[in-house]
Amino acid sequence: MSKVFSPGRALPVADVPQWDIVTDVAIVGFGAAGSCAAIEARNAGATVDIFELASAPGGSASWSGGEVYVGGSGGTAIQREHGFEDKTEDLHNYLMMSGGPAADKKKVGLYSEHAADHYTWLEAQGVPFKGTYLPGKWIEPPTDDTLIWSGNEKAWPFSAHSKPAPRGHTVQFKGWGGGKLFMEKLCEQAVKLGVNAHYDARALCLITDTEGAVKGLVVRVAGKELFVQAHKGVILSAGGFIGNPEMLERYAPQALDSDPITGGNDNGSGIRMGISVGATTLNMQEFFVTIPFFPPDSLVKGIFINERSQRFINEDTYHGRVGRHVIQQPNGRAWLLVDNDIFGRPLIQPDMNIAAVGETWEEIEEELELEPGSLVATIAEFNRHAAEGKDPYFHKSEEWLRPFQTPPFAAISYCQDDIKTHAFTLGGLATQPTGEVLNADGQVIAGLYAAGRTACGLPRWGEGYSSGMSLGDSTFFGRQAGLSAASITNG
Amino acid sequence: MSKVFSPGRALPVADVPQWDIVTDVAIVGFGAAGSCAAIEARNAGATVDIFELASAPGGSASWSGGEVYVGGSGGTAIQREHGFEDKTEDLHNYLMMSGGPAADKKKVGLYSEHAADHYTWLEAQGVPFKGTYLPGKWIEPPTDDTLIWSGNEKAWPFSAHSKPAPRGHTVQFKGWGGGKLFMEKLCEQAVKLGVNAHYDARALCLITDTEGAVKGLVVRVAGKELFVQAHKGVILSAGGFIGNPEMLERYAPQALDSDPITGGNDNGSGIRMGISVGATTLNMQEFFVTIPFFPPDSLVKGIFINERSQRFINEDTYHGRVGRHVIQQPNGRAWLLVDNDIFGRPLIQPDMNIAAVGETWEEIEEELELEPGSLVATIAEFNRHAAEGKDPYFHKSEEWLRPFQTPPFAAISYCQDDIKTHAFTLGGLATQPTGEVLNADGQVIAGLYAAGRTACGLPRWGEGYSSGMSLGDSTFFGRQAGLSAASITNG
Repeated sequence: MSKVFSPGRALPVADVPQWDIVTDVAIVGFGAAGSCAAIEARNAGATVDIFELASAPGGSASWSGGEVYVGGSGGTAIQREHGFEDKTEDLHNYLMMSGGPAADKKKVGLYSEHAADHYTWLEAQGVPFKGTYLPGKWIEPPTDDTLIWSGNEKAWPFSAHSKPAPRGHTVQFKGWGGGKLFMEKLCEQAVKLGVNAHYDARALCLITDTEGAVKGLVVRVAGKELFVQAHKGVILSAGGFIGNPEMLERYAPQALDSDPITGGNDNGSGIRMGISVGATTLNMQEFFVTIPFFPPDSLVKGIFINERSQRFINEDTYHGRVGRHVIQQPNGRAWLLVDNDIFGRPLIQPDMNIAAVGETWEEIEEELELEPGSLVATIAEFNRHAAEGKDPYFHKSEEWLRPFQTPPFAAISYCQDDIKTHAFTLGGLATQPTGEVLNADGQVIAGLYAAGRTACGLPRWGEGYSSGMSLGDSTFFGRQAGLSAASITNG
Repeated sequence: MSKVFSPGRALPVADVPQWDIVTDVAIVGFGAAGSCAAIEARNAGATVDIFELASAPGGSASWSGGEVYVGGSGGTAIQREHGFEDKTEDLHNYLMMSGGPAADKKKVGLYSEHAADHYTWLEAQGVPFKGTYLPGKWIEPPTDDTLIWSGNEKAWPFSAHSKPAPRGHTVQFKGWGGGKLFMEKLCEQAVKLGVNAHYDARALCLITDTEGAVKGLVVRVAGKELFVQAHKGVILSAGGFIGNPEMLERYAPQALDSDPITGGNDNGSGIRMGISVGATTLNMQEFFVTIPFFPPDSLVKGIFINERSQRFINEDTYHGRVGRHVIQQPNGRAWLLVDNDIFGRPLIQPDMNIAAVGETWEEIEEELELEPGSLVATIAEFNRHAAEGKDPYFHKSEEWLRPFQTPPFAAISYCQDDIKTHAFTLGGLATQPTGEVLNADGQVIAGLYAAGRTACGLPRWGEGYSSGMSLGDSTFFGRQAGLSAASITNG
């Protein structure tokens, strides 16, 4: 066929020359959401074909820390074992705050109720969790321990609204990057259950009938277009759009300054396919951004200021929340102030630009060309309160509060051009907790499901994202999509 | 027919029982964009049917100040007459900044080039502009003068990037609310040119062929569904979605705290119809918000602080920009500080809550329960610089700078529960400057156009919006949509 297929435009079923593959459930993207959708759909008795753009399964979740944000129901086995009670209500309140002004009550409700069970389910699929707890403040555990404080739980304002518990459950893997192992286990399980996996397979567009119901999709494998009929539905789990600069420019231009955290196949095709059949999108402007900060965690005892010498965040909050605030400062300028006792080079970018060093804060102020007296006043105020273990303005917790005392003092530059940032997108298709994709009137589009970053899920607000939320959401709601699709009869 | 029509789902052309109305160009919404689209389409020789939900034409633009933001090309006749040169480049730079991170270069380019001509065109349609200039800082002219400073031109950071000129061109009308007259003239002109206007006509959904091209729409008039065939295209100019709480909750939840500025028919149906046929949306989270502030303009000499006693904005910037910052402050708390010389009751909400009054700033600080010493320090710093005509932190212009001097001092509450705010939405369908609606791959959807707040236009960022931008954009790009639709042959 000479027809040009494009994710933004669906193919009418009347134009399908033949069905090359016939299945119950067709899944686009063999990552966290796709693998869990596949497992559940197979377990429910459906035939499943999954189409993955890469040559191997795993998706962007393979590049992650292999951590899921779970708890509630009094606590997972490992939380309880280490003395942490975790009520469903506390997880719920935390997730509602983390979702920001447009948090999804229905998704948060279902997830909070079943997150602890979901952890058990992941274990049952073969994902290993050692069951040991690592205290302290970490991005990912450098050890093979599997329970950490991974979010904003202990930081204001979250701590004021929800009793904190460590909820970052990490696959047992020594060092960073456990996502690879995590995904290997889930994908192995899916294949073992008889999912037909197609690699180097590019989803080109959806196929719809005259009533707008999704009947299948067109994929390209080995240079050939194949027409896939999906009797029960198509699940879009193809990731977000951080790898698509055109989409970023349009929807989330502030993320253009960051490199993708993910593997590069987050090209937004899943979202575009959804839009092509009348789906609506949510929070397309939102993204999670990392900046080079701790470790070493002594840096958390420093304070961030902007070009007005104003502080703007409690530095002990999750690094992504700190990052989101850093990049929003006037003229993209911010610095982390430290003294000699707490100084260290950020592990992630050890060659950070030290913008100023001095024996006094007056010297730092002058080197940074801040307004005379402004920085000195900010430091005096911070020191005075820190000495009393207080931070009345930003509510940094006492654990991280100490006055600056030992010169030389220094300012590490977090100005826009000086830091390497990494991001992924949080906006996507509007879905029900079942994964059913919604149109602009809030009605279900027949035959279409989405999960993972192709959908707008629990993690949907850059200021509230924390580690494990994306993987927790993708695996949990991937399962729901697989179950829903398998259980319906699509005419 | 028992079929339920819904904007979020298009009707297949095969399901159309008969064509009740056959026209070249069908327009949804007889407001600013719709009237101008109708005029141009008629002038280009097309037959035009326009469907308006209300019983009379005018749309939300009738509720506006009747002001268009135009200039460039060296200046409009009235700008030049009053000594203001206005280069296209300066208008261009200003509009790019006003559009925020996702500003639309193509639209800004076309508009800047032709804005001065557009003013002449509006005059030619019968919109009266007296041609007199009113100096000072106004929301709308209280007189019948027709040129004012209506935006952020003279305020930092805009003033640092673009030479300011007054660009608010207001219809000649004594007092606020000239939008009614402005729209009367445009709608009269459209009707005079032979546009078929249908009132109390609710657009229900679009009609598409199997290739996804838009062929017409279904409307309900007098309880009866009519099927409208549009040979050349459908133009969606049905306003934004500030009148639709469900859409606000989903896309722009922060606007839920505000009342609609507009007439109540901004129900988002135009946007939803676009989404139903695969259109993508932009900046759906953005909105323009007004707070009760000046007049009296002496209040602009006050300073806003948040609960940290931090200033956060140059108060001389456009009131919508101030408002956007006010509502974003931590815990929704902010106050405007004044002394006895500049105190006044905001015209828009004279019963504003005076949260604190005192002979000293220490008293104010205590009454507001701010951190001891914090407010006093902020005031001292402000006063010291203001006495020198400087504001090194927020760059308020010298014209509005004076130290506080005459007690009693007071804090007017701008805390969330104390102010009445009004808003309209700025997100909408992605379109070309021609009005052609785009799908998620950036391709044109055949037969579909959008303009005004149904599209994401020049005004697309709450922090950058200023008076006259919406009406300028709607009328100008409404014209482009009318011209484009009339000139094509839609099979």
